[in-house]
Amino acid sequence: MKVLGVDPGLTRCGVGVVDGVAGRPLTMIGVGVVRTPADAEIAHRLVDIERGIDAWLDEHRPDCVAVERVFSQHNVRTVMGTAQASAVAMLCAARRGLPVALHTPSEVKAAVTGSGRADKAQVGAMVTRLLRLGAPPKPADAADALALAICHIWRAPAVNRLQQAQAAARRAAPASVPAAGLRRAAPQKGTR
Amino acid sequence: MKVLGVDPGLTRCGVGVVDGVAGRPLTMIGVGVVRTPADAEIAHRLVDIERGIDAWLDEHRPDCVAVERVFSQHNVRTVMGTAQASAVAMLCAARRGLPVALHTPSEVKAAVTGSGRADKAQVGAMVTRLLRLGAPPKPADAADALALAICHIWRAPAVNRLQQAQAAARRAAPASVPAAGLRRAAPQKGTR
Repeated sequence: MKVLGVDPGLTRCGVGVVDGVAGRPLTMIGVGVVRTPADAEIAHRLVDIERGIDAWLDEHRPDCVAVERVFSQHNVRTVMGTAQASAVAMLCAARRGLPVALHTPSEVKAAVTGSGRADKAQVGAMVTRLLRLGAPPKPADAADALALAICHIWRAPAVNRLQQAQAAARRAAPASVPAAGLRRAAPQKGTR
Repeated sequence: MKVLGVDPGLTRCGVGVVDGVAGRPLTMIGVGVVRTPADAEIAHRLVDIERGIDAWLDEHRPDCVAVERVFSQHNVRTVMGTAQASAVAMLCAARRGLPVALHTPSEVKAAVTGSGRADKAQVGAMVTRLLRLGAPPKPADAADALALAICHIWRAPAVNRLQQAQAAARRAAPASVPAAGLRRAAPQKGTR
């Protein structure tokens, strides 16, 4: 399984491609950063990110894309740009029919270091060791993108089992009821 | 000037096209809502929004797109989806070379009602009167999209003068210095 990990950001969007399966040594295929100028208009920066992500997808043809799940609780000042960059990454992938997986920062840290509270240096060190690199990828956004891809390869079997169980549960229920019920429901605060 | 206003949201993305210039009666060209199912995956919902916005741009060929500026301070639970939907709207417009303008909710309310603290009903009533409609557009997201377009038509002359002054100031400075300086600057907390 070849996975493109994306650590979303407007100024630096980390991208990293890792190939492999859980339980076997992994291979780094590529790593880099899509940058956009901080003085450009936000709409143009999003177009730059789209071009950058599309170029990575064209070149490496991953089987799926793993994007960091953005929360609004922390980094309030940067979170809007991060959410917008992540939207572009998800859009580029889904438009091609590629599965998109979201992993939280602590899921990624826990997967690669064993601790959900690991710092940047620990994540970089483990990525370096797991991919047998000469030095930690710089900047940290690039290392984080590789960590996301590794996390996805390792978590995918468990996530797939969960999704299959959910799909089976949906099939067991009358087909049209749950979806129609959700769509008709009163506007929910969390889903607008 | 024909303006597409977009009130971004994942479940309901309001869209409204208004034609006119400041100081003259305005005309509503179209209004609607791009909806995506709340039970679909976020990446697929963003693709649906892209298709919906692209269809409105294809049909109405606006001169520019006005999008609500999203803040992270309020509606913490809904703000991520709103930011992501707004990213898709900005991307669709900028990809076609259309100018994208952002207006805050209070700028929009102040422009159409005279008060930045007006409620939904007041905004709907003023949109109805300004566009000479038979009844307020429903849902509120559709009325808000029209209010954004009206706000942009009325604010555009002032915003244009400001941007021209900023561009002149940049031209007065050595051409490559400000942009290169900003790009080399240390990572800023607010711009990642």
